[in-house]
Amino acid sequence: MANFVLKGHICQSLDERHLGIRENHYLVCLENRCAGVYPILPTKYRGLPMTDYGDRLIIPGMTDLHLHAPQFSFRGLGMDMELLDWLNTNTFPEETKYADLDYARTAYSQFVAHLRRSETTRACIFATVHVPATQLLMELMEQSGLVSYVGKVNMNRNAPLYLAEPSTIASVRNTRLWLEETAGKWQRTKPILTPRFIPSCTDDLMYRLADLRAEFDVPVQSHLSENYSEIAWVKELVPTARNYGDAYRKFGLFGGDHRCIMAHCVHSDTLEMEYMRQNGVFIAHSPESNMNLASGVAPIKKFLDYGLKVGLATDVAGGSQESMFRAMTHAIQASKLRWRLQDQSVAPLTFDMVFYLATRGGGAFFGDVGAFDPGYEFDAVVLDDSNLDHPQPLSVRERLERTAYLGDDRNIYAKYVAGTKLF
Amino acid sequence: MANFVLKGHICQSLDERHLGIRENHYLVCLENRCAGVYPILPTKYRGLPMTDYGDRLIIPGMTDLHLHAPQFSFRGLGMDMELLDWLNTNTFPEETKYADLDYARTAYSQFVAHLRRSETTRACIFATVHVPATQLLMELMEQSGLVSYVGKVNMNRNAPLYLAEPSTIASVRNTRLWLEETAGKWQRTKPILTPRFIPSCTDDLMYRLADLRAEFDVPVQSHLSENYSEIAWVKELVPTARNYGDAYRKFGLFGGDHRCIMAHCVHSDTLEMEYMRQNGVFIAHSPESNMNLASGVAPIKKFLDYGLKVGLATDVAGGSQESMFRAMTHAIQASKLRWRLQDQSVAPLTFDMVFYLATRGGGAFFGDVGAFDPGYEFDAVVLDDSNLDHPQPLSVRERLERTAYLGDDRNIYAKYVAGTKLF
Repeated sequence: MANFVLKGHICQSLDERHLGIRENHYLVCLENRCAGVYPILPTKYRGLPMTDYGDRLIIPGMTDLHLHAPQFSFRGLGMDMELLDWLNTNTFPEETKYADLDYARTAYSQFVAHLRRSETTRACIFATVHVPATQLLMELMEQSGLVSYVGKVNMNRNAPLYLAEPSTIASVRNTRLWLEETAGKWQRTKPILTPRFIPSCTDDLMYRLADLRAEFDVPVQSHLSENYSEIAWVKELVPTARNYGDAYRKFGLFGGDHRCIMAHCVHSDTLEMEYMRQNGVFIAHSPESNMNLASGVAPIKKFLDYGLKVGLATDVAGGSQESMFRAMTHAIQASKLRWRLQDQSVAPLTFDMVFYLATRGGGAFFGDVGAFDPGYEFDAVVLDDSNLDHPQPLSVRERLERTAYLGDDRNIYAKYVAGTKLF
Repeated sequence: MANFVLKGHICQSLDERHLGIRENHYLVCLENRCAGVYPILPTKYRGLPMTDYGDRLIIPGMTDLHLHAPQFSFRGLGMDMELLDWLNTNTFPEETKYADLDYARTAYSQFVAHLRRSETTRACIFATVHVPATQLLMELMEQSGLVSYVGKVNMNRNAPLYLAEPSTIASVRNTRLWLEETAGKWQRTKPILTPRFIPSCTDDLMYRLADLRAEFDVPVQSHLSENYSEIAWVKELVPTARNYGDAYRKFGLFGGDHRCIMAHCVHSDTLEMEYMRQNGVFIAHSPESNMNLASGVAPIKKFLDYGLKVGLATDVAGGSQESMFRAMTHAIQASKLRWRLQDQSVAPLTFDMVFYLATRGGGAFFGDVGAFDPGYEFDAVVLDDSNLDHPQPLSVRERLERTAYLGDDRNIYAKYVAGTKLF
């Protein structure tokens, strides 16, 4: 168990609307958890090893609530179509390659190395339908020191023959095999049930997945209300559902008795919002992806005001990169265009709000994560912004904001996950 | 006069819709101008010094058609308001500091160093109202090896007393002084007449500036139709003008007999488009700035189809950074949200289109610039994308696209401006 003290400028989200900044403060880690932020180090902690990060900023680690590891290979490529065409043209052919473990090892090693160097400490990751490659990805994630949920994808319809699982039975059998192998195997890496989205999974598969979910007590992740064509298709596929979210709900895969993440929710209406609130569903807001695939912009401020749980996501490779800083600035920018072009009843997001989404908002999916409250798991990222030159004095708050807009991996100076120093 | 040959993968824009890629080709520079792209080096050029860039990409230098050097200090900061409040709160107080030459030297040196390291080879830059600081910036730009137009700003109304020029006479006198000092002084750096925008300049100042423009034969840059409140204000200030563009036109500062850049044009209507076409006005599309200040999205595809001259701009610090790659990806993303949220009659921009805007589109303001056509000035940037790892083979075209999405200054391997190697 790790016990130590860090010193620096401590920046964290207090709530949805407020950043809290404590300059030259001490941040105490006891048994891998936060034990407070102090202007003067209490006597009882003075024997602990201390690292003084000087003028650097210390922020909570960020949670990327939704991204696709096998799509990392084509990040920044081919974003000239909408969702359904993009899946068939870019995504499915690439994901097929993960039947080959050698390819998967090369590709996933690159993905994990980037994620490890980033501001992300926790992530919820889609793999592919392939069990061996998914287990390999989980092994690599465990070795990285990051904390994650990783999902073997289920898809037994509306996918190319070369990629789709050949039957419900095969999909369920493989998923059971994978859950038996991986549930409880690692300290930091856990399985998460991952039906790709309604169009990819037959009704009987969805019901069987709900049984597996309960049997293994795992959470669920999927996609919801991202694109108009997709939503219309779901309406055809599950005509008895009142909306897309209700389709997941009917199958027993929409939270309530389990933790559940739904990515996007760009076009969720009030009834879908109500279902999400009732069931405690986490929304993974993926602003860059929703721009790149011309999906639209989710009304995040409205979701927050309605009491929904919202985190932030890169959605690689709908989003072009693994940087949560870029996700934060894209979230602000997209919300401003939504306000200007579509709906002035929903205010744009502020910097404080997107910092909340990236830390506390998504961190809550992992429990007490995403802040330095006493008892919270000790995830911290130390930022060095000294290469971002400026002629005028800047406050710590200003330095944090510009690091989000201008920073990259060169600004990630040190990183701690659940009390363990990664670098 | 420089004569040499480069070898590598030559990527350039052929026209508004098409990239042209020539792998492992020779690019010849004769007397600082392009002399063709060849699969096999013609015998007559075999005596020239040759640099083999191997597997790297060689693209035309990019033109940033609109950015504010004194705002570089607060890039990535304070973008939580619309244009007019943002000017009063962030911009004007910062610009005031450039009365102090020591501050200007520190700030402008940082700005110029970043621009020199970037993919930009040519730029049209706003300075401040201060003559000495503007001349200093021009001196620094000249030393950088980049080619630029730099403008001392005119503003004699609707600005804080501490920043506004005290009278029309003072503004004209200072501008004349500055033009006398700088016109023809440098090889790469030229003055450009820069009335900030209509709200900043009285009618009599505008008429006097038009006289100065003709006397010194300099081009003009300003802002046009960026924000709804600004447009309404211009309507009040120049009630006889048929629209914002017509106001400039009435004053003789809207192209026609001179080169002219208007930044933004987010809300230009058909009549304003027609005035721009008739007068050959260049539009500086500033997509990130137009998101950050919640201005909206200019219909660039419509402008191109209408035959307007369009280039791309970072608009630092409405835009957060000097990277034209980021401006390109923001342009695509903004156009997709415009298409999705506002108007499906204007198609989103493709990668080929934004590459055109960043090279040929804006380069045309400088003459034969922005491509490797024979006779064009030799501006070239060599990209090394080897740090952007990937498991699969990628075409040169794909490598170019992902470098625009993922690259930064680390990917700028070498740079030539008008035949001179900068690094």
